[in-house]
Amino acid sequence: MGTITRVIPENEKVRIIEVNNVVCWESNHQSYICVVASPKKESKLKGLKSFIAYQLTPSFNNIQVSRRYKHFDWLHERLEEKFSLIPIPPLPDKQISGRYEEQFIEHRKNQLQAFVDCVCKHPVLSRCAVWEHFITCTDEKLWKSGKRKAEKDELIGDNYFHAIETPEKSINHYTLEQEILSCSRFVQNMDGAVKHLMETSLDQSKKHQGPYKREFQKVGHAFYALGQAMSIEQPKYTGHENLVTAIKTTGDSYIAIGLLFEEQPKLDWEPLGDMLHVYKGILASLPEMLTFHKRAIQTKKDCEKLAFDQKMTANALEGVTKRTDVVSYALLAEINHFQNERAEEVSKSLKNFLTQQVNFYKKVKEITKVCPS
Amino acid sequence: MGTITRVIPENEKVRIIEVNNVVCWESNHQSYICVVASPKKESKLKGLKSFIAYQLTPSFNNIQVSRRYKHFDWLHERLEEKFSLIPIPPLPDKQISGRYEEQFIEHRKNQLQAFVDCVCKHPVLSRCAVWEHFITCTDEKLWKSGKRKAEKDELIGDNYFHAIETPEKSINHYTLEQEILSCSRFVQNMDGAVKHLMETSLDQSKKHQGPYKREFQKVGHAFYALGQAMSIEQPKYTGHENLVTAIKTTGDSYIAIGLLFEEQPKLDWEPLGDMLHVYKGILASLPEMLTFHKRAIQTKKDCEKLAFDQKMTANALEGVTKRTDVVSYALLAEINHFQNERAEEVSKSLKNFLTQQVNFYKKVKEITKVCPS
Repeated sequence: MGTITRVIPENEKVRIIEVNNVVCWESNHQSYICVVASPKKESKLKGLKSFIAYQLTPSFNNIQVSRRYKHFDWLHERLEEKFSLIPIPPLPDKQISGRYEEQFIEHRKNQLQAFVDCVCKHPVLSRCAVWEHFITCTDEKLWKSGKRKAEKDELIGDNYFHAIETPEKSINHYTLEQEILSCSRFVQNMDGAVKHLMETSLDQSKKHQGPYKREFQKVGHAFYALGQAMSIEQPKYTGHENLVTAIKTTGDSYIAIGLLFEEQPKLDWEPLGDMLHVYKGILASLPEMLTFHKRAIQTKKDCEKLAFDQKMTANALEGVTKRTDVVSYALLAEINHFQNERAEEVSKSLKNFLTQQVNFYKKVKEITKVCPS
Repeated sequence: MGTITRVIPENEKVRIIEVNNVVCWESNHQSYICVVASPKKESKLKGLKSFIAYQLTPSFNNIQVSRRYKHFDWLHERLEEKFSLIPIPPLPDKQISGRYEEQFIEHRKNQLQAFVDCVCKHPVLSRCAVWEHFITCTDEKLWKSGKRKAEKDELIGDNYFHAIETPEKSINHYTLEQEILSCSRFVQNMDGAVKHLMETSLDQSKKHQGPYKREFQKVGHAFYALGQAMSIEQPKYTGHENLVTAIKTTGDSYIAIGLLFEEQPKLDWEPLGDMLHVYKGILASLPEMLTFHKRAIQTKKDCEKLAFDQKMTANALEGVTKRTDVVSYALLAEINHFQNERAEEVSKSLKNFLTQQVNFYKKVKEITKVCPS
């Protein structure tokens, strides 16, 4: 546990409160969103170096800033360093090949949006200095000095707990243990299930764009070829021309359905996969958080033993106990935030997925319907 | 060309007429259908031998007869033997493995129905003696004697042309050649296209029952597992239970869609494939018919040369010419029947296919819709 004793600046202070027996981060500031948009290729060094820049616009000032993936990466490092007990949402995976392809860039924009949304919704992350700098700084010089300042921030890791104010009353250890047990079982159960559904999402996205599309196009081509073969001799039989048109239109329809399959994942599987990517990343951070907390508890127990053996003063032990309680409070606040937030995200994402699936099958149905028959 | 000169019994006589410049088989008898139904396992020799019997009920007498596949096979041989210029619709392929499986038997019933429909709709086949015997004979003894009679039928192959009455006027050879050219090009073009769509049908049927079903079930299981994982700890968060239910229901829905995929081919791809199987079989007979006709024309030409060289009497040549015209008339009548009949069948089949596809995607849409979200 950190031991600096300097004064914490007001804007760094965060408060944990207890509302209806639920421990949570105080959230008394205006909530806002930040839109990630218009990824575009930019270049510097007279075109020698090119990169993709994403435009971020926070709702509280409506001023656009331009950030590259590497800036996000830098920010992510700062946040991880600063907050031991807050799982930082993951960034999209680094990827070299195809990084200028429109589809890849568009998808990455959506993934960065998911990251940004997650930060904006967090009562602590959304108002920390480095994040505010990241989404508001438009001046090149100020950006660099802000970066240096963030890199020299001392209120990070163990020290950060000094910035947290908790309820006065000491924590209920039975509830704490129950919560931790429940959380660690939850992580264990969810880990595999989230990974599995995420892999299913990726797999379905690929299959829609590859084999499913091809299957429908194969069907389309088979019908179309029949119509073609039938029309070559154009015999004089009644209704023959209408039939040829119907068969060719059927062919066209299945080719169109193939294209629909190709376009669909962007609307359903991809957003679901992006949500799950964030969920998976956060789940992956939780065991570390729990271990961190466990170590704090162990330290406290060791100190209790020392005090019992009179190798530590009662005063010093009280200090340790208080600091440990801060860690416990922070853990509980974060578990609660995580559970509510993720449940909401999963719910929103599932709703979107199902709505898009309904629309999709409706469109497919409409396409098969318009065939003259 | 056959040379028997005995009297043709009235019920064997068929007539070709010309209506609005179109040569066709006269069809002045009542049309009827014959339903193939209730395939069931029967046995004889005290259960030592078991087989599947299909029940046939013609609409003109409503009396049911029971026939096995081998009887169909025997009938098919008779018809092929008797009619050189009528392509006999193909029977379903012989298949040994899995021949007692319900699905196989049900499908074979449908394929036999397609064969029966095709015969019933043919103005010549539908009223020939062996066919009538096949669909009406209920008595075991009469069945056997009828079989022997059919096997001894002399009015078959070349001889059968004696049973055909044609218009008096000799055939227009320019029109004839055009028709034949057009027909042979049609066969060439259609052959590949029909085969291709038929293979696509078989392929899609299999994929619906295998990989497509599995893909949807995989998706279903992935959702279900997530709901399961979420529900194990049942934390106290708002709306959590509803969300768990929604996710599990989503899982169930995709598993249900998987089953829908498995059941679907029976309604769309299988009937389409059965129609194409018949089409393919008939197309395959056409080149043989055209060759048969070509040979007849060549014989006539040879005779013309003989007559020119005075090695054949004018009288004999006239006989040859008349008999050749009968062959040509029969060919034209059959081509016209084939074209109209097949166009109608393709049209009906396509209509059914598309209707079923629309229903299918409607059902899929409804299933995704009922998920609480």
